[in-house]
Amino acid sequence: MDTKQIGEKLVGFCSKGKNLDAIDALYDKNIVSIEAMAGPDMPAEMKGIDKIKGKNQWWNENNQVHSSKIEGPFPNKDRFAVKFHYEITPKAGPGKGKRISMDEVGIYTVKDGKIVKEEFFYSM
Amino acid sequence: MDTKQIGEKLVGFCSKGKNLDAIDALYDKNIVSIEAMAGPDMPAEMKGIDKIKGKNQWWNENNQVHSSKIEGPFPNKDRFAVKFHYEITPKAGPGKGKRISMDEVGIYTVKDGKIVKEEFFYSM
Repeated sequence: MDTKQIGEKLVGFCSKGKNLDAIDALYDKNIVSIEAMAGPDMPAEMKGIDKIKGKNQWWNENNQVHSSKIEGPFPNKDRFAVKFHYEITPKAGPGKGKRISMDEVGIYTVKDGKIVKEEFFYSM
Repeated sequence: MDTKQIGEKLVGFCSKGKNLDAIDALYDKNIVSIEAMAGPDMPAEMKGIDKIKGKNQWWNENNQVHSSKIEGPFPNKDRFAVKFHYEITPKAGPGKGKRISMDEVGIYTVKDGKIVKEEFFYSM
């Protein structure tokens, strides 16, 4: 699969809320994940497929997703961009119970047919 | 200005179609611009503020813009992302006279208060 095809698969999974399946199918075991900012219990940069799965599970368990709109992939050589829009209500933390919109851009780097880096761009 | 403030200025200019003003106000003179692909008369990578202005002038002169929607900025440390949607009709080239939608993501890198790199993600 080339970069665009991997991006299309990722967008397909994420559009169905199947982020964990996307990780299993498309991510390298040494994936590096970079958030725009660290959370209270989470560093901005994490490495390794198990930690990234853990982060995704945490997100799934701690947010009620009302709707999502996922645009892309937008490729450039060995990378592709995806635009995410979510309407969510957090189940925990300072925003608990308060419905919000979330907009972010992800940049994914592909090497040897696997996603080796994901970088998320957003402000809170 | 920090990265987010520079991003807000860029989005403000681009939302008004003032791309050339954005370049004058915000770009470093050694700006590097990287397209997803080369054009018939344009390399994928160009360097220097005069060349980037020339590319933008070419785009302005060769496309009729019917509408645009510009989302962002979405920051991550020294970079920010912007999502562009344009409805255009090219005035020249193989797509001349045919109205199309254009979606792309730009990633901008900031150093010492100026944009030093722009990278565009899209497929044709």
